[in-house]
Amino acid sequence: MIPANSVGIVSKNTYSFGYPPDELLLESGRTLGPITVCYESYGKLNEQRTNAILITTGISADSHAAGYYSENDKYPGWWDPLIGPGKAFDTNKYFVICSNVIGGCAGSTGPSSIYPITGKPYGMLFPVITIKDMVRVQKKLIEHLGIQRLHTIAGGSMGGMQALEWARTFPEAVKSIIPVTCPSRSSPQEIAFSETGRQAIMADPNWNKGNYYTSKPPVFGLAIARMIGHITYLSEEKMNQKFGRKMTNRDVIPNEVDQQFEVESYLHYKGHTFVERFDANSYLFISRAIDLFDLWINNDLAQGLKSICAPSLFITMSSDWLFPPKDTLEMHNILLSQNKISQYLKIDSIHGHDGFLIETDKMTSPIKDFLAIIN
Amino acid sequence: MIPANSVGIVSKNTYSFGYPPDELLLESGRTLGPITVCYESYGKLNEQRTNAILITTGISADSHAAGYYSENDKYPGWWDPLIGPGKAFDTNKYFVICSNVIGGCAGSTGPSSIYPITGKPYGMLFPVITIKDMVRVQKKLIEHLGIQRLHTIAGGSMGGMQALEWARTFPEAVKSIIPVTCPSRSSPQEIAFSETGRQAIMADPNWNKGNYYTSKPPVFGLAIARMIGHITYLSEEKMNQKFGRKMTNRDVIPNEVDQQFEVESYLHYKGHTFVERFDANSYLFISRAIDLFDLWINNDLAQGLKSICAPSLFITMSSDWLFPPKDTLEMHNILLSQNKISQYLKIDSIHGHDGFLIETDKMTSPIKDFLAIIN
Repeated sequence: MIPANSVGIVSKNTYSFGYPPDELLLESGRTLGPITVCYESYGKLNEQRTNAILITTGISADSHAAGYYSENDKYPGWWDPLIGPGKAFDTNKYFVICSNVIGGCAGSTGPSSIYPITGKPYGMLFPVITIKDMVRVQKKLIEHLGIQRLHTIAGGSMGGMQALEWARTFPEAVKSIIPVTCPSRSSPQEIAFSETGRQAIMADPNWNKGNYYTSKPPVFGLAIARMIGHITYLSEEKMNQKFGRKMTNRDVIPNEVDQQFEVESYLHYKGHTFVERFDANSYLFISRAIDLFDLWINNDLAQGLKSICAPSLFITMSSDWLFPPKDTLEMHNILLSQNKISQYLKIDSIHGHDGFLIETDKMTSPIKDFLAIIN
Repeated sequence: MIPANSVGIVSKNTYSFGYPPDELLLESGRTLGPITVCYESYGKLNEQRTNAILITTGISADSHAAGYYSENDKYPGWWDPLIGPGKAFDTNKYFVICSNVIGGCAGSTGPSSIYPITGKPYGMLFPVITIKDMVRVQKKLIEHLGIQRLHTIAGGSMGGMQALEWARTFPEAVKSIIPVTCPSRSSPQEIAFSETGRQAIMADPNWNKGNYYTSKPPVFGLAIARMIGHITYLSEEKMNQKFGRKMTNRDVIPNEVDQQFEVESYLHYKGHTFVERFDANSYLFISRAIDLFDLWINNDLAQGLKSICAPSLFITMSSDWLFPPKDTLEMHNILLSQNKISQYLKIDSIHGHDGFLIETDKMTSPIKDFLAIIN
C-alpha cells in the first residue's frame, strides 16, 4: 500500500546526447560520447519553468530518490522521506529531478556501457571523470528539460559535492544549493580509505584489469571496498550501540578464525549485498571522482569560494567523521565573510556520515524554511 | 657506528617447552605444543633476580626491541630510544627481556611453524589464540629464566593488552605495568577494520585456505590488510600535515585510475614492504587475538579490574583514534577508585596510535620516575 504522501508510482527516463562529433569534452581533456543520462522526476514543471529542483546522488545511490516502481514495491526511493506532497521538497510546489551520475552503473553511461570504438564495454578504457564532469552532464539534461535555472540543488555526500560544483560552474543556473554532509575537498584520510577499497577490487583476480563483463565479476574485492566504506559511514558511538562486542556465539572463544562478532556479520552482509547491484569498475571511477573533488584554489578556500554566489544551506551530522562538520562550517563562515547568504545546520546525530539518509525528520523544517526564502 | 648509549650488538635466543604430554592448554580448550618462544635480552639479571623488565610487542613487532644485530646494521630495535644505558628502561639497572608472541612469524611458534601431527606448517590448523595465551607462554619463559617477579611489563598497543593481562592473570608475578596506547577491550570499530583486513587476505586466491607455504603467498591481500591498519595508526591531522592533497603529478587530472595522491603511494609502500617480513596467517590469528581482548566481566569494567593490583602507568596519545585516550582514562579512574596506584599520562601528539613508537622522548621521564617508585 503506497502512503498518501508519496509521489506514487514512478519510472526511469533517459536522455542521450553527445553523439559524434559533439562528444562532451571532459576535464581530463578526453571526450565522452554518446552519453545517456538516466533520471526520474516527481511533481510538475510550472509554465514559467522556475520550480525545478535537482537532487544529486552519493556514491551508491541511483536516480530512484522517491516513490515506488509498483504497488508491490517494498521500499521507496532513497530520499523518499524528503520528497513528496507536503514534504521538504514539496512536489505540490516543485518539479523534482534526480539523475544518475556518469561513471555509475544504474542507467547513465559508465564503464559497463558499450564503448562505440570497440563495440565492447568500456572497462578501464572509460575516461577518468570528475564531479565537474558529472555536473556538466546534468546541465545538459536540465537544458533538455527546458529549464534555465534551478530553484535548488540538494544532495548528501558526493551529492553535496555536485551541488557545490554546480554553484561554482554554472552560477547563472543555480538559485540556491543544499550541500549535506559534504566537505570543500576530500581529505587524505578519505583518499586513503578510498584507495584501499580500489586496491581490494584490483587485487581480485576476477577484476582482470576491468574486463569481466562476460565472466565472473570481482565480487570479493568489491565487497571489501564496500565494507571499508561502511566503517567510515558509521560513527563509533553508533557501532558501540548497535553491535558492541556481541558475538554470534556468546562467551565462547571462537575456535575458528571465521567465527564472528556481530559487527563482522553486518559488514559481510553489507558487502555481499552491494555487489549484487553495483559494478566494481564504477566504484573505481566514482571513488576517484570523489578523491579529486577540490574547491580550493592555490590551497586557498576563500579564493575557491569566490565564484559561489548562490545562497547555501549546509547540513552536517555531529558524528560524521568521514566529512567532519568543522570542514563544512569553514565554508559557511567564509561565504558569510564574503557577504553571501549561507545557513549552517549541524544535526545532533549518532548516525555518522549515514545520517544524511536517516535524519530526514530533522532536515525537513530547515529545508522548507530555506526554500521559502529563495526566489 | 653504534651509539654509546645503545645496548650494542644483540642476538636472538629461543626457549622451547610444552613437549607431549605437557602441551599448553589454551583458552579455547585446544592444546599447543611443543612451543618455541623467541626472545632477546639486554642488561644483566641481578643476583636476587629482582630487576627484570618484560617488553611486550604490538601486532607487527618482533623481539628485537633494542640494539643492533651487527656493526653495519642500519636500524636498531623498535623501542631502542627507550631501552639502553641511562634510558627509560635503563640497562645499567634492569635486565630487559622482549619476546615474540605465539601466533606470530618471527621465531615463536605460529601458523608457519611445523605442526607435529602433519609434519607440515599449521596454516589454519593453528589454534585460535588469545592475549592470555600469549602471556602464559611469556610466563613460562620468565620461569625458565629463573625470575619469580617482574619489575614491570611495558608495551604499546597489543603490547599494552599483554601488560594488563599479565597483571590480571599473574598478580603475584608483576610488580607494576606500563600499558601504552591500549584499551580495556577492543571496540566494534577496531574489530570492523580488523575483519576487513582479514577478508582481504582470505579473498586473495593465493591464500588458498592458509596453505601457501610451498607456493606464492597472498601478498596482495596482506598488503591491503596492512594499508587498512596504517590508516588507523595515523591521525587525520598527521595525514593532512604529511600528505595533504599532494600528487605525484601535480595540478593534472590523472587520466588513469592508478595515478596517485602521495598518501596512496605511501600506503602502497607500507603495504608492500610489510609482506616481505610478515606471514598472512599470523595476521589472521594475531588480529583475532586483539579483537577478543576484553578485560570487562559481565559488561562491567570495574569488576574486570578488581584483580589488577599492580601499580600502573597508563600512557596515551591525544590523537590516537584507534584506541582513544578516554577509554584508557576510564581504566585509570576505576583503579584509583579501587584504591590502586595508577598514573595516567596523555601525551599531546599528532602521531595518532603510532605515537607509541615515536613519542619516546616524552615518555622517558615519566617512565623513569614511575619505575623509581616501584619496589
